[in-house]
Amino acid sequence: MITDDTIVALSSGTGGAIAVIRMSGEQCAEICDRVVRSAKGRSVATSKGYTMLYGDVVEADGSVIDDAVVAIYKAPHSYTGEDMVEITVHASRYIIRRTIARLVEAGARAATAGEFTARAFLAGRMDLSQAEAVADIIASHDRATHHLASRQMRGGYSDELQGLRGRLLHLAAMLELELDFGEEDVEFADRSELRTLMAEIAEKIESLTSSFALGRAIKEGVGVAIVGRPNAGKSTLLNTLLHDQRAIVSDVAGTTRDVIEEHLDIDGVDFRFIDTAGLHSSNDMLEQMGMERSRKAIEEAHIILALVDGTTLPKSTEEAKNSVLEVLGEIGCGADERCLVVINKCDVAVCDCSAVAEKLDAVLPHPAVTISAKSGVGVDELMQGISAMIDSQRIYTDAVTVSGARHYEALVRAAEALARARENLNIASPEMTARDIREVLDLLGTITGEVTSDQILSEIFSKFCIGK
Amino acid sequence: MITDDTIVALSSGTGGAIAVIRMSGEQCAEICDRVVRSAKGRSVATSKGYTMLYGDVVEADGSVIDDAVVAIYKAPHSYTGEDMVEITVHASRYIIRRTIARLVEAGARAATAGEFTARAFLAGRMDLSQAEAVADIIASHDRATHHLASRQMRGGYSDELQGLRGRLLHLAAMLELELDFGEEDVEFADRSELRTLMAEIAEKIESLTSSFALGRAIKEGVGVAIVGRPNAGKSTLLNTLLHDQRAIVSDVAGTTRDVIEEHLDIDGVDFRFIDTAGLHSSNDMLEQMGMERSRKAIEEAHIILALVDGTTLPKSTEEAKNSVLEVLGEIGCGADERCLVVINKCDVAVCDCSAVAEKLDAVLPHPAVTISAKSGVGVDELMQGISAMIDSQRIYTDAVTVSGARHYEALVRAAEALARARENLNIASPEMTARDIREVLDLLGTITGEVTSDQILSEIFSKFCIGK
Repeated sequence: MITDDTIVALSSGTGGAIAVIRMSGEQCAEICDRVVRSAKGRSVATSKGYTMLYGDVVEADGSVIDDAVVAIYKAPHSYTGEDMVEITVHASRYIIRRTIARLVEAGARAATAGEFTARAFLAGRMDLSQAEAVADIIASHDRATHHLASRQMRGGYSDELQGLRGRLLHLAAMLELELDFGEEDVEFADRSELRTLMAEIAEKIESLTSSFALGRAIKEGVGVAIVGRPNAGKSTLLNTLLHDQRAIVSDVAGTTRDVIEEHLDIDGVDFRFIDTAGLHSSNDMLEQMGMERSRKAIEEAHIILALVDGTTLPKSTEEAKNSVLEVLGEIGCGADERCLVVINKCDVAVCDCSAVAEKLDAVLPHPAVTISAKSGVGVDELMQGISAMIDSQRIYTDAVTVSGARHYEALVRAAEALARARENLNIASPEMTARDIREVLDLLGTITGEVTSDQILSEIFSKFCIGK
Repeated sequence: MITDDTIVALSSGTGGAIAVIRMSGEQCAEICDRVVRSAKGRSVATSKGYTMLYGDVVEADGSVIDDAVVAIYKAPHSYTGEDMVEITVHASRYIIRRTIARLVEAGARAATAGEFTARAFLAGRMDLSQAEAVADIIASHDRATHHLASRQMRGGYSDELQGLRGRLLHLAAMLELELDFGEEDVEFADRSELRTLMAEIAEKIESLTSSFALGRAIKEGVGVAIVGRPNAGKSTLLNTLLHDQRAIVSDVAGTTRDVIEEHLDIDGVDFRFIDTAGLHSSNDMLEQMGMERSRKAIEEAHIILALVDGTTLPKSTEEAKNSVLEVLGEIGCGADERCLVVINKCDVAVCDCSAVAEKLDAVLPHPAVTISAKSGVGVDELMQGISAMIDSQRIYTDAVTVSGARHYEALVRAAEALARARENLNIASPEMTARDIREVLDLLGTITGEVTSDQILSEIFSKFCIGK
């Protein structure tokens, strides 16, 4: 990664009224002063940091491209830690193109994706986990994703991991020193201290990896598949949840052939509700294709709402209960931890829905909910039930949540290496223990960026947008 | 229009890495200081203009939404002429939403479309024609549209119009004073001065209105319809012009049914090339619909490229010429000023295409061009010919060009009123002359904004985007 030149890119979005072009690097002031003619004869070079300058962006022949405000940052007090300017112009495609072209003519280079943040990392302004959180911050669209990314950006678990890794590094060095002394049978590394520390790290890693399911669900949106027999009221429920008429509703069974996905924010968490085609036997090709897609949606969902049509249940509570279980068996739900049973049309059912739900409690992982999707009765309770199923409130506590797949993979592999290290220590094999611990150190180091390679960096930053 | 409160809106586009939220009004500093917690205990209220402040945007409970840089402008040295701040945050939908929500909670109001620019106009920072040019500047996508908007924003013709209008206003006042003296037969307004001035204004208006055809073409993109018999090579020509394979090309006549539109930048002007369905008699419904669309495209085009297949022409130059004229008659082109005749496939034609073109010169408004769309021979000359047809270079001179429909309409109506005024002056009717001149003054005043109404303002600024 080349860092001794000056890079430039559009940092704001396109559209809108104004656009911000960001430039960072040693030649920043010099290049900017060549392209922006200050109204009062001022210059970026002689200006203080955290001040602004008004002027015209000009072509080589002196003609004006646009008037601009230049925000000036002086190293190290900038995002990248280098000298930096942010040039605000009107958000015209032509003006943006010409301004960047002029800055490139004057000596800047067009920045690659994530290059500003990569420089911030390389300058020690943030660790790798924080740099990655910047991309998550930008992508955050609700309170939960924002909270996850914010925690990670403000240190999150990397501080803690760094502390534990530092202590492990010390003991590993002691252990390796022993190996140098070969046959002399010395013990520099305190075995009991090492055991305690490894147990502590294993516990920490376990707590982090176990948070990943929630973290990933939050990040991707929690998938909620609405399943049930045809005409159970799946589309009506979706419409009621969304307070509008997104799904086409009709009395004809099998109306929904496509998988419809809608987003709903419950307590700051993004839930993706997926209305699936009714599962039943059919010879209709299109319906079969719809059902295939439904099965896939169910497989990938975090929560399955098993919708049962209350009006199809017999009057007797016991018989009604059995009838519900039959439906659940048919749609492959019920015992599944992800399954939430919902009895619909309870306002017009002949059975006592609440009594049926109560009877089902003994055999289901979560209490069944009774609703009328059409009138809206019970829908609030249903939403609470859904929210409770993923313990989403956990993320607003101080508990740390892993949401990045790269971190999760490194942690899982570190846990495996750590398990081997602990075993090898028990069978008194310091060589193998040292090798395993070294692997743990490397893996934990890739999270915080204490261990990096050009490959890791380019993989991470290429996922960024240009201009960040 | 309410201007004594403080307004806020996202001013940059969505997407990108960073977003700029703009706030303007008297309570700007106070509101910002309530929402942004400065890192070093600084405040917007006590900061100087043209400085920046780093801090955290915080929720009411003190939790951090994002870190932010606040650019501070103090009245009157800001875009709106009021106290202003621009808060740069990460471009996350959640962060933008929450930051604006917090500023509104703290006392700001969500800005309406164009409200910042409307305030700049009302504060006298720019006249109305300049304010309108801001929207054109933002929309500019090539050198020509940028040049038009820039000229208008830097004064353009409004300075000149204001000068002429000021002089006319003085004479109108004199004329009206005469009327007050009724029967006394005094002449305060110098008739010969008035005649000279009205002639001068009429000439100015004439020059401005006549520039509108070019101005509008530049702004909308110059429409170039490629017409001709089926298989004349229209799609091949379009592909050659664009150096790619946008249109589907085949040897089967009538391949192109849809109207295909492609943009090409020639000398900074946006040309919209429209590939039309071949015009010929056909019973095919789809082809007929295609031809209907072709006819509409031809009607609206600024330039018509009449493409003739050179291989269908007989060997004799005279006969070939007549054959070309026959084709032109068929496609309703030829005598039309907008028509440029292009003889294609000249590399494989049996006639001498250049000789045919030369013979056609006497009867056509523009010299015919000979090309081979397939090999590219003659295509550069064709592009020069197209560019010359709209005199696009004119706009890069100091000549003033009207591109706004509102201005054009006001000018046309002012010209009519002026003609009546001159006539009435000749038949010595000072009352009617005064009334007509008053109308001219009002119409010219609406261009520069010296005469405005809430209706005019809201019409103009509602076309702006929010945040400008």
